[in-house]
Amino acid sequence: MSQKADETGMMKAILAKGDAPLEWCDVPKPVPKAKEVLIKVAAAGLNRADILQRKGMYPPPEGASDIMGLEVSGYVEAVGSDVENWRVGQQVCALLPAGGYAEYAIAHQGSVMPIPDGVSLHEAALLPEAVMTVWANVFDMAVLHPGETLFVQGGASGIGTTAIQMATALGAKVYVTAGSDEKCKACIELGAEGAFNYKTTDFEEELKAVGGADVVLDMVGGDYLPKHINASKFGARILHIAVQGGLKAEVNLLKVMMKRLTITGSTLRGRNDLDKMHLADMAVKEVWPWVASGQLRPVVDSSFAMKDAEKAHERLTSGLHVGKIVLTL
Amino acid sequence: MSQKADETGMMKAILAKGDAPLEWCDVPKPVPKAKEVLIKVAAAGLNRADILQRKGMYPPPEGASDIMGLEVSGYVEAVGSDVENWRVGQQVCALLPAGGYAEYAIAHQGSVMPIPDGVSLHEAALLPEAVMTVWANVFDMAVLHPGETLFVQGGASGIGTTAIQMATALGAKVYVTAGSDEKCKACIELGAEGAFNYKTTDFEEELKAVGGADVVLDMVGGDYLPKHINASKFGARILHIAVQGGLKAEVNLLKVMMKRLTITGSTLRGRNDLDKMHLADMAVKEVWPWVASGQLRPVVDSSFAMKDAEKAHERLTSGLHVGKIVLTL
Repeated sequence: MSQKADETGMMKAILAKGDAPLEWCDVPKPVPKAKEVLIKVAAAGLNRADILQRKGMYPPPEGASDIMGLEVSGYVEAVGSDVENWRVGQQVCALLPAGGYAEYAIAHQGSVMPIPDGVSLHEAALLPEAVMTVWANVFDMAVLHPGETLFVQGGASGIGTTAIQMATALGAKVYVTAGSDEKCKACIELGAEGAFNYKTTDFEEELKAVGGADVVLDMVGGDYLPKHINASKFGARILHIAVQGGLKAEVNLLKVMMKRLTITGSTLRGRNDLDKMHLADMAVKEVWPWVASGQLRPVVDSSFAMKDAEKAHERLTSGLHVGKIVLTL
Repeated sequence: MSQKADETGMMKAILAKGDAPLEWCDVPKPVPKAKEVLIKVAAAGLNRADILQRKGMYPPPEGASDIMGLEVSGYVEAVGSDVENWRVGQQVCALLPAGGYAEYAIAHQGSVMPIPDGVSLHEAALLPEAVMTVWANVFDMAVLHPGETLFVQGGASGIGTTAIQMATALGAKVYVTAGSDEKCKACIELGAEGAFNYKTTDFEEELKAVGGADVVLDMVGGDYLPKHINASKFGARILHIAVQGGLKAEVNLLKVMMKRLTITGSTLRGRNDLDKMHLADMAVKEVWPWVASGQLRPVVDSSFAMKDAEKAHERLTSGLHVGKIVLTL
């Protein structure tokens, strides 16, 4: 397949085309610019943002590919003229602005990372987006400290399973929500101190009962923010990385003042190359050792051949998954 | 009068008694505990919090006096057994948890500051609350940088006039709102780059037209927060120090994420002694030189004899004032 791609300058890839089923199409093989690395893809990670992108709700940054996919692992196939740290044939994983569901993908050199010890090449495709999102928000923006309490909505998600392990490795206590007792159990096994089934319990009361949160990592928004404010400790930081439950939220500003709360949020895709380089550096220096020591492992829910991405998306949309879904070539 | 107070162990002071007119009553003269300083009051500053306290909306911290008043200047009258840095007879100003509308007031030693060069003893009573509030929020929490843009609601208030001058001294650009063209003019004279009359213009559009804000200092809350979010630059910090326009505000969390905004707030009264000591240190080290050089001067709207505090409160409630109102003995 890659032989053919090389010869014709074409490759197979999956484009974001609204609600139409995902197709394994022929598209031009990309050519790396001066600071870019061309990766021969071995595996790509699925993200909820991919679902949003199909719905037109999370467009790629200007100039980025229409091919879906925010993270891959594989082999360096070619490098741009200004690339110094990567050479052809190296095994790498990378965060991408787009373009991961493909035989070949382009990454900015600063978003490329070596494969950490302790994981397979395929598993490594599941690390960049979650690790960098958790680092950017929980570690950089909220400055979670050892001994503090992190509360994560959606503990069984790709972000959730990663946040549980990274915060536990730091020495923080983690409480999470999940949508079934089985998922709650999986979160506890990953290191969570407690897991609240949001379908059968009131997470606000449960969180208050264990003393409240210093940091909240939320993908829901909407009605959840007032609950997070109520169940936060003095000085807490509440971080939003998605708004699956609604964009608009009501805030009691007097509570924000009296408890000196910080309400913030960010996207990973909107960060510039320098920001992403910093996050990749932090991942390699601070997080890869946790992978090597077994404190952080990517939780693989399921694996699909890349051309069957439609089935993989169905699995992600079902909400039945625990951890991440991988597409392989 | 103080002679009499010494002899009888009594003094004159004004208590917060709901809507009843403020009275110059006889109360016991306080005695400093180990880490406290007793100040013979020369002047006390008025704050909007005093009005709220009369309405029962801003109660003093537990254990604090029922006497009104959050800041004074005067002479050290006596010191507690553990006080090392202050001696009887020194001219000082201080932030108080309560107790400033009185002949004698108690301050924690860490909240006492020397009178800066360049102001009178009476004027110095108007510095602690505003300087420490602006430092805590704009400088410590929001980390305003030189070259950034600060937007202040209520530029003609005590906090506003102080924020304009402190941020300008730092090298930031300041835009403000005020309720009359005359007040807008006063703000420009203090160093503001622009002042928007919120009764005749749309401050959101005005602020957008000048490029938006990096830091917003707000005492209004309510409907203003969505406007501040819209007129904020990427990475902006929005700080709430009062909620004169309503406790509840609607937040678009997607905008918070996409613009990586921080929404936070604090009260000065709720800070512990260590926090206040830090703020007093910062005031003396970083802000007093600006007073000495003439870059920051307390804007005195009007002066009343302390026993006429009721009239002073009427002036504050009228909203006609520019800067601060002082009570003198």
